This record gives sequence, C-alpha cells and structure tokens, in this order.
Amino acid sequence: MLNLILCGGCGTRLWPVSRSLMPKQFAPLFDGQSLFRKTVVTNSAVCESQFIVSNADQFFLAKDQLEAEGMTESKFLLEPVGRNTAPAIALACLNLDPETIVLVSPSDHVIRKKDEYKKVLLRAEELAKADNLVTFGITPTNPETGYGYIEADGENSECVKRFVEKPDRATAEKYLLSGNFYWNSGIFCFKAKTFLSELGKYSPKMLAAAKKALANAENVDGEPIRIDREDMLAIPANSIDYAVMEKSNKVKVVPSDIGWSDLGSFDSLYSEYPHDENGNNVNPRHIAVDSKNSLVMGSQRAIATIDLDKMLIVDTPDALLVAPLSSSQKVKKVVEELKERGSDLINVPQTVSRPWGTYSVLESTERYKMKRIVVKPGKRLSLQKHLHRSEHWVVVSGTATVTVGKNVFYVRPNESTYIPVGEVHRLQNEGKLPLVIVEVQVGEYTGEDDIIRVEDDFHRA
Amino acid sequence: MLNLILCGGCGTRLWPVSRSLMPKQFAPLFDGQSLFRKTVVTNSAVCESQFIVSNADQFFLAKDQLEAEGMTESKFLLEPVGRNTAPAIALACLNLDPETIVLVSPSDHVIRKKDEYKKVLLRAEELAKADNLVTFGITPTNPETGYGYIEADGENSECVKRFVEKPDRATAEKYLLSGNFYWNSGIFCFKAKTFLSELGKYSPKMLAAAKKALANAENVDGEPIRIDREDMLAIPANSIDYAVMEKSNKVKVVPSDIGWSDLGSFDSLYSEYPHDENGNNVNPRHIAVDSKNSLVMGSQRAIATIDLDKMLIVDTPDALLVAPLSSSQKVKKVVEELKERGSDLINVPQTVSRPWGTYSVLESTERYKMKRIVVKPGKRLSLQKHLHRSEHWVVVSGTATVTVGKNVFYVRPNESTYIPVGEVHRLQNEGKLPLVIVEVQVGEYTGEDDIIRVEDDFHRA
Repeated sequence: MLNLILCGGCGTRLWPVSRSLMPKQFAPLFDGQSLFRKTVVTNSAVCESQFIVSNADQFFLAKDQLEAEGMTESKFLLEPVGRNTAPAIALACLNLDPETIVLVSPSDHVIRKKDEYKKVLLRAEELAKADNLVTFGITPTNPETGYGYIEADGENSECVKRFVEKPDRATAEKYLLSGNFYWNSGIFCFKAKTFLSELGKYSPKMLAAAKKALANAENVDGEPIRIDREDMLAIPANSIDYAVMEKSNKVKVVPSDIGWSDLGSFDSLYSEYPHDENGNNVNPRHIAVDSKNSLVMGSQRAIATIDLDKMLIVDTPDALLVAPLSSSQKVKKVVEELKERGSDLINVPQTVSRPWGTYSVLESTERYKMKRIVVKPGKRLSLQKHLHRSEHWVVVSGTATVTVGKNVFYVRPNESTYIPVGEVHRLQNEGKLPLVIVEVQVGEYTGEDDIIRVEDDFHRA
Repeated sequence: MLNLILCGGCGTRLWPVSRSLMPKQFAPLFDGQSLFRKTVVTNSAVCESQFIVSNADQFFLAKDQLEAEGMTESKFLLEPVGRNTAPAIALACLNLDPETIVLVSPSDHVIRKKDEYKKVLLRAEELAKADNLVTFGITPTNPETGYGYIEADGENSECVKRFVEKPDRATAEKYLLSGNFYWNSGIFCFKAKTFLSELGKYSPKMLAAAKKALANAENVDGEPIRIDREDMLAIPANSIDYAVMEKSNKVKVVPSDIGWSDLGSFDSLYSEYPHDENGNNVNPRHIAVDSKNSLVMGSQRAIATIDLDKMLIVDTPDALLVAPLSSSQKVKKVVEELKERGSDLINVPQTVSRPWGTYSVLESTERYKMKRIVVKPGKRLSLQKHLHRSEHWVVVSGTATVTVGKNVFYVRPNESTYIPVGEVHRLQNEGKLPLVIVEVQVGEYTGEDDIIRVEDDFHRA
C-alpha cells in the first residue's frame, strides 16, 4: 500500500502556534513532534512508501520531517496553487502504477487506537483490491456539527447510502442516535486505476486537465514533480467527495472506532496531552497558583497563572492567545481580525523554515534587525545581494563557508565577517554539524523582500 | 517646602512588571511615565526642592527620572541597606537646615485630586510651621484591611487620638462608619528640627546612631551622600510610625480626600487607566474578541483574547501573568514560588538599567548571548575585562569610542569591533545622541558576574 499524504491546510485553526508558513500539521505539537510525522509513522505500519502532494512552501517542511523519520525515498508533487483534494489525488494517481493500492490521508489528524486502525486498514485494503472506493467512517462520539457524515445502509454495514453535509445540532443528535451515521474522516483507500476511472466517469474535465498538467510538468528523477501554474489553474477545483464519492456506486465505508480527532481546536488538543494532578497539561514553564484544567502552551518564558479553571494560554515569541478553553473554536475570529489589520502574524512564525535551515528574528527596528540563522549541514543559501542593508555575521557554532564578491573563505566560531550593501554573497555549511550564526542587519530598510537571488539550489533565483 | 522622597520598596507586588531592579515606583506604568515621576511633579506644585533617600541600585533610576523632569539639583542620600522609614528620614533631616519644612512622601502612590491635595498640603505646612508633626489621613472609601488607620478626636478634627494597626474586616467596617478613622498614607509634613527633637525624645539611640553614620559618611559636594554599611546596620530599624508618631503628642492629622491609592495590586492599577467602550484598558497590541473589563498589559507582542471578563494579563519579554483581576493580590504567591525555585525573574527585568544606560538580553544560550546596549550621551561603562567570553560589537546608532588594550578608536554606525577574552576594554559615548550597539558574546560562560572592573565612573570598581 502507498500512503498518499495531502499537506494542504491554511494552518490558522491553531493560531498562534500554527501559521500559514508553519501550518498545524508541521508544528511541533507533541514533544517536538508534528502531526505530519505522527501520520507517516502510523501509516508506515501498513504502507511501504509515501507520496506527498504539497505546495512549494511546505515541500521542505515535509521533506525534512520525513528524513527525520528515516524516510528518504518519498515522492513529491508540488502544486503552485491548491485546487482542493480531487485534483491533488488525481495528479498523484496518474503518476502511479494503476494497480497500486493508495491510502489517501490528511496529515493533520490524530489516531489514538493504533491496533484498531491497523485492522480497519487491512479491511479497507481488501475492499480496495475488489475495485471499491473505500471511505473510513468514524464512529461518532458526540453530535458534532463541524463534520460531514456518511450514512451506511444499516448498522455496521459497509454499503453507503449517502454522503451528508455538516448538519445542524438537532440533525446531528439524530445521527448520533441512529447508529448508522459516521463522520467523514477524509481518509480513503482505493486502487489508483479505480479512482481514475470513476473520476473519468463523473468529472471527465478534471481528469483531462490533470493529464495535460502532468504532461507539461517539470519531472526530473529524484526531484519533486512541479506542476505549471497555468496548468494547475486550468484544473477545476473540487473535493474528492463532490467530484467522485457522492456520485460513484463503488463506494464503501469501513466503520472505524479508531480514536480519531482532527484537532480542529485547542480544546481537542488539550484532551490529547498528558495532564498533571490539577488537570493542567505538563509544562515546566508554567507556575500554577491554584490553577486547574487548563492548557498552557509555551516553552520560552515563565507563565504564571492564578485561580484559572478551564483556560487556554498559548504563548509564542511574537503573539499570545488567552481564552476559556470552551471558546477555542473562536480563534478564527482572531485570525479574521488580524487579516483585516493586514498583520503578517497569521502567516509568518518567529522561526521561519527555509530549504537550507531556519532563521529567527530576535529584534526588528527601523534601523536594524537581528537574526539567529541555522544552516543545515551540506546546505547553502542562495547567492544573493541586498540593496538597502549591510550584514554583520558572527559565527557562534559550526564553520561557515562565506562568499563575498570573488572571495571565498571560512569563518569559525567567535569570528565575524561583514557584507557591504550591494555585494554579492553566500552563506554555506560544508560541515557535519549545524552552522549557527548571529546576523545583525543595518540599513535604511531590512524587509525580507530586499533580496536579489543570483543563483539558488532551491528554484528561487 | 522640601520634598523628601523615600524610594524603598522591594518591587514585587506588581510582578512581572516590577522587579527588585525595576521596582513599581520606577516602572513606566503610565504612558511611559512612572509613579516616581508623577510624585515629584505633583509635589513640585508646593515643593521647591527634592531630597531622595534610596539605595545604590535605585539611585540612577531616580536621578535619570528627575533629570527627565528637568530637576537636576536634587540631593541624594544612599543607604547601603534599608532600615525602614525612621532612619531614612532622620539621616535626611540631619542634612537639612533645621527650619526646613519637609514633606515626606513615598514614591509609589497616586493622588488623583490634585487641587484638593494642594489645599491639604498648604494646611499641613501651616501646622508644621507651628511645630507639629503632620500626618495625612486619607478618607476611607471601603473597609480596607490592608492599611493602618489614624483615629482623629472626632469628625474632621485634626487632633489625633491614636494610631491603629491593620484591622480585621469587622473592625474596618466599624472604622468606615464612624467617620473619624483615616487611612495612614505614609505622607508626613514637619520642620526638620521638630522631627529630630521628637525622635531624640522617643528613639534617642536611633538619632545618635544616625548622627554617627552621617559623620562617617562619604559626603562630596554634587555627589550623593553614601552611608557606610556598618554604620547603617548600627542604626535600629524602625518605622516613623512606631519610632515617633505613635508616641509624640505633637502629631496632627489633616483629613485628606485626595483620590489617593497605593496601587498595591493590578486591580487598583486597572482602575487608574482609561478604558475603551468594552471596559478594557486602551492597548493597541490587544486584539479583543468578545472580551471586556480586563487589564491587558504588554507593548511588544500581539495579545489576542476571546470571551474574557474581568481578567488580568501582564505580558513582559521574559514572563507572563494571567489571572482573574480579583485574584491580583495573589501575585505574592507567584513571587514566593519563583523565590523557592531560585528564579532571577523576581529581580532582573529584561531591560536592566545601569548608571551609563541600559542593556537588554535578546537571547541567551549556553554558547552565546545577544544584547542590545544603549549608552547615554556623555557616559561610559567601566574599564573592564572578562575571563570567559569574547565580545562582538556592532554599532547601529550613534558613535562609540572604544578602548581595547592600549588602543582607543571610534566605531561608527554599521561598523563593528571585537574584544578578545581577557582584553581590557571600555565602551564610551562622547556624542550628543544615544549610542546603540548590538553585542554578541561568545564563550564558555556568559554570566553577568564574569566582569573584572579596572576603573569605573560609578563606584563599582
């Protein structure tokens, strides 16, 4: 079985932990581990390989996290713009042997009951082998109004009667009682060819456009497949549910009591964490005075609380969120407000991931900006120049190979160098350990967009 | 009239805004202004000069803030160790012309009704001229159990019957109803000689020890008077209330309905601030979603709140406090917990004031530390060396005069220099504008105590 992982998701449901450049599925929510990593590890119990569909920003996040799990052979397809799930799955399936059994999974959900999940996957595989399109119907535990439902043809039946939209509260309560309604988990299993033939039947234009896009795509061995922007936009945007599942008569549902959660808000995250004797999540930075049943996230500063009950505190280097846990669905209102204010806080985290490593802005003023830059072993930044800022680099760990103009030289720990305005330069780590430098930018303008890339290892020049 | 300002106070009642190195009275609580500044300005309506009693740490904070108000002629007396209010007042009065009318005031209280206060001060001056020891009795507005009371001899009488300790709730309620009980504000007015002669009568040992301490003190014109540590410890510690006021028969009370508050906790601070239409204090960093009646302090990061009512959030660069406003008296429990953990967060703020300016730690790790250093015009740091760290300095604003070994040279904006481990060096600002540098320390140990001062302008060598 192959695990087709969809990495979409704008990433603001768990703001300020998640941002569009560090969406929920890649954020280190579980002792430094992400949902994405949990997903690939869980599915690797049944799947031998991974195929990742993501955008260019998320490519390096996904690649790094797969490599951290020792998975270096995964295939990638990069969408220049998202067109919902059906085109993503179609583009992937068109790249596969038609007989491949594909497990489509989002990367931002948790599954607690691993053994049960494995059983369910094996049953799905059987059904997929018999040319079915298999959905996983999560046994509902509450009258949830935030999910779509799948109605089975009787209790514990694998035959699907219909897909239904997010219900209102009263309807959801009826569904919960009836016993043959399941949450639509967004997990699917089928042969590549079954999906493609059903897609051809019900959304032929999408299939044709996807084929055309793939024919034009940049497709070099060992590199991610890169779809052209115009080709991608020519594919009709639609979900797999609308485009295929709700229409096909080959759909089956596997009832799945697998401890599934989509972690749609902080209160669901709270219930995933271990708690101390007061019902607070375990956090060494938390100084709790008469406080209980609260989720206190944050690893840098001391967080003192007094007389709190069922509260949510999310502390990040550049933004703080405080709310009752029961109001955590309303985070979207904060995100909307930030969007209206034109704030970049919904997009950019303090530590920004780049293909070559990370940078963190430690202080930013009109006249200067201070960054910590970490370059991964064997990586280098683009050959670049800036028109408005000079840069001072102090190496604090590792050895930097620095290009300034025509000179190339080493800068060692406790040594520094200087890049004048307008000078072409490059920072490289040829070593075996991470290179850490402190950068002080001085100039009339220190925005990230003052960068002219002359040459780049990562398609950004 | 002379304003004798007492700057004591450990400074942790408003943690994390106030710390022992940035106590409440000096913290920029009011649009960048401090209670200390408010106090000197308010009292300058009646007082022509200031005499400050403080410790060495607070001396520069007080001096800077006085200078910011254009008061450059103030006299200072520095206590190496606090011995409560009576010795501080005695040491100051011994330095004054005996006929001077002294207004003793704490520096960490607010007075809202300025006109009423001025009237009360003028009445106090009259009584002081007639050789009385004048106290200011605040008309109580609630059955407060946190203050001592003064009982007057009937309503609106200026004769004092007795001083009483902090009462229990029931007693406080009786006091409130009776009409002739007042809060003891800690503000006093008298001739220097009246106080000293009454002190000699009731606490003769204290007066003698104070005289001796003063005779030994370092007392150079234009410099603060510095009392010797042993001499200071030889003075019996006591409050002015116990040492003199409760015993003397020259005590008067001026009933004072002056809008007084000692800002003993964040909820009293909340009521001092202007509020928006939702009852939140005005804070441009606050993104309020359905939140009301809350105090949200913090000027650096975005602070998003949802569905809060009567809550307190205090956001500082290195520590965060969240509590119901009604629990703000329990901040002391947090401080006790931090003390138990041996945390320096109760003492050191992120931006530390020094006689020459400030430094702020922006990042601190095992291998390096990053600071923003601001040197005031005309000031210089000590001539110093470090045994465990090298320093890289990048000037971002102003011009630095740098001494390294025997060399003295200028470092201009966008220039940098390097101080090797063990090398004697000095940073100086000879210019007219603040000098701002970014410092990157690299070494095996970057603690503040790795400093050997060879020479210093500020008595620290």
